[in-house]
Amino acid sequence: MASSGFRFELMHTDTGSNARRGRLHTPRGSVELPTFMPVGTLGTVKGVDVDRLRSTGSQIVLGNTYHLALRPGADVVASLGGLHEFMGWSGPILTDSGGFQVFSLADRVKVTESGVSFRSHIDGSPLEITPERSIAIQELLGSDFAMAFDHVVALPNKREVIADATWRSVRWAERCRQAAQRNDQMLLGIVQGGLDPRLRQDCAKALVALDFQGYAIGGLSVGEPPPEMYATLEATIPALPADRPRYLMGVGRPEDLVESMARGVDMFDCVMPTRNGRNALAFTDRGTIRLRNAQHERDSSPLEADCPCPACQHSRGYLRHLFQAKEMLGPILTSIHNITYYQRLMAEARLAIESDAFDEFRRAKLAGWEA
Amino acid sequence: MASSGFRFELMHTDTGSNARRGRLHTPRGSVELPTFMPVGTLGTVKGVDVDRLRSTGSQIVLGNTYHLALRPGADVVASLGGLHEFMGWSGPILTDSGGFQVFSLADRVKVTESGVSFRSHIDGSPLEITPERSIAIQELLGSDFAMAFDHVVALPNKREVIADATWRSVRWAERCRQAAQRNDQMLLGIVQGGLDPRLRQDCAKALVALDFQGYAIGGLSVGEPPPEMYATLEATIPALPADRPRYLMGVGRPEDLVESMARGVDMFDCVMPTRNGRNALAFTDRGTIRLRNAQHERDSSPLEADCPCPACQHSRGYLRHLFQAKEMLGPILTSIHNITYYQRLMAEARLAIESDAFDEFRRAKLAGWEA
Repeated sequence: MASSGFRFELMHTDTGSNARRGRLHTPRGSVELPTFMPVGTLGTVKGVDVDRLRSTGSQIVLGNTYHLALRPGADVVASLGGLHEFMGWSGPILTDSGGFQVFSLADRVKVTESGVSFRSHIDGSPLEITPERSIAIQELLGSDFAMAFDHVVALPNKREVIADATWRSVRWAERCRQAAQRNDQMLLGIVQGGLDPRLRQDCAKALVALDFQGYAIGGLSVGEPPPEMYATLEATIPALPADRPRYLMGVGRPEDLVESMARGVDMFDCVMPTRNGRNALAFTDRGTIRLRNAQHERDSSPLEADCPCPACQHSRGYLRHLFQAKEMLGPILTSIHNITYYQRLMAEARLAIESDAFDEFRRAKLAGWEA
Repeated sequence: MASSGFRFELMHTDTGSNARRGRLHTPRGSVELPTFMPVGTLGTVKGVDVDRLRSTGSQIVLGNTYHLALRPGADVVASLGGLHEFMGWSGPILTDSGGFQVFSLADRVKVTESGVSFRSHIDGSPLEITPERSIAIQELLGSDFAMAFDHVVALPNKREVIADATWRSVRWAERCRQAAQRNDQMLLGIVQGGLDPRLRQDCAKALVALDFQGYAIGGLSVGEPPPEMYATLEATIPALPADRPRYLMGVGRPEDLVESMARGVDMFDCVMPTRNGRNALAFTDRGTIRLRNAQHERDSSPLEADCPCPACQHSRGYLRHLFQAKEMLGPILTSIHNITYYQRLMAEARLAIESDAFDEFRRAKLAGWEA
């Protein structure tokens, strides 16, 4: 079923790169592209309430289907009004399909053409996700963007294993397309194919033939060297239609975002801002700051002088103290700072594209991070 | 040294009880009395940033001298601008003296007339706090209200042990009075004396002779039955001057606050809202709610329909899920709700006193909590 109320608007392409300035119109408001989606695995971006999340500049949030299906269960979320009502986020939400998590988290995973059977990593209970079940769960959750259920394999891997999983993912994508019932949910296909340019292109073409409203690039940022990821993007993106949004899943570091935008990616998600924030690592334009370092004990300067986030109302010395004393507020504030940092980076990137200055922006950022 | 810029204004005493409506003017703004002070042990009310804390209605915050002296150290706090600047709280702050914590938390505690030597509960390092050192630390922290350093003993205890500690506390209070240097910090004496009415009264009289600007009642809510605490308040408060604020330390449950206000207490602090909030216990006008209970799994109602706090923008089902999934946001939101609950209770109490209806207010609240 085709979803209504969604529209991808390509506003401008940077003259010096393939970076694109777009807008994704949805029934729950529009999303300025390129965009970064904070990860709200279990119906919350860890440690950040929705008001604070909104104030970071975040416009769309990701939820994890595998986690929510296990706890509290998609039916519980549905009975509490769906994921938006459940977590109190009125803006757009994207749910992943559960594919990546099943293959990375679950126990005793067994793949057949029908789907994947496995044991819950929480209580060992037996479960199964098929393409149809993934869509049914995502429809119960009520996200605005649903993802096709895919077969993700670890890299590096044998060529035939990657190819087999890739073509299974294409067949599953078609079943997802058939299974989708809600017309207020947009479904995206996921290009797989490891680091093989030809396989990536063939997979992209097969998915494009199925006419998805948007395309994701999956199976990257799983340990391969960044240049190989960029090369894979360069091989894949030309095979995707210019009039559909492109989403690079699970990426990444600020430099990965900038390099991927330069190659034409519109959407990102990653746990880095929050996971690193909980671990006392803060992002800044001058590189990362390890807040537990003793050098910050009496440091009265904020993480970034021009950052409007609540963490930057405090000194680095105070933030360090919070981590040393194991106070929750350390992870909370540093997560908020990091998400704010990512969103400010994306806002700057959008401005740079609009003024055909993306490459200058890219060089300046990379120079700052390496300083 | 007498502090300037502080003034206690007694606005009204309830006609049907001893509840008092007052205002405590300080250089950092005024505090409406009776007031409840959330506990910010280590320079943060656990899980609650200062903007959120302000929005709970909190006007004054407590910091723990013992904890801050150990970590990060009073000199570090001072070098980062003092406790207000350190934690980003521009309103009034009260610091305790460290007495209660030394006797309840530290290892190998040894009391002499000079002071207390002990080992840090964190790293075992040897430390000493004397009355003069407690004042010096509190002056480094720069709180608006400092407490005299007292000798706290466990209850029940031998009569002579309690009396010995009580008179030592009086002698130490006099030394604190002599040691105090800052004229922007108001010093309060602490009445001890266990559950012995005569000893409490004698202690109060001895402290009043030292002319403190305010008086605290310490050594209560340490396990004794609530009626004994109330009886001790009834014996102590008449011995305190009406024109000085009265602070009941470490208390307590909502019913303790109401019963103590009825007996003339103006100020409270307690970890209950935050400690219970972290443990999934929420306060409401209909008693406490254990959010982990399975009955809340699909409960779409908020903790309290008329509560303006961010937790009450969510369903009980969502809050339960956060605790089940061990998400930080559960403790965060429930702590904020509980502080908001306490502050709304205090605001209602102040209105009740103003309209000479405190007993009616007291009965209605107790009936609701017991329902």
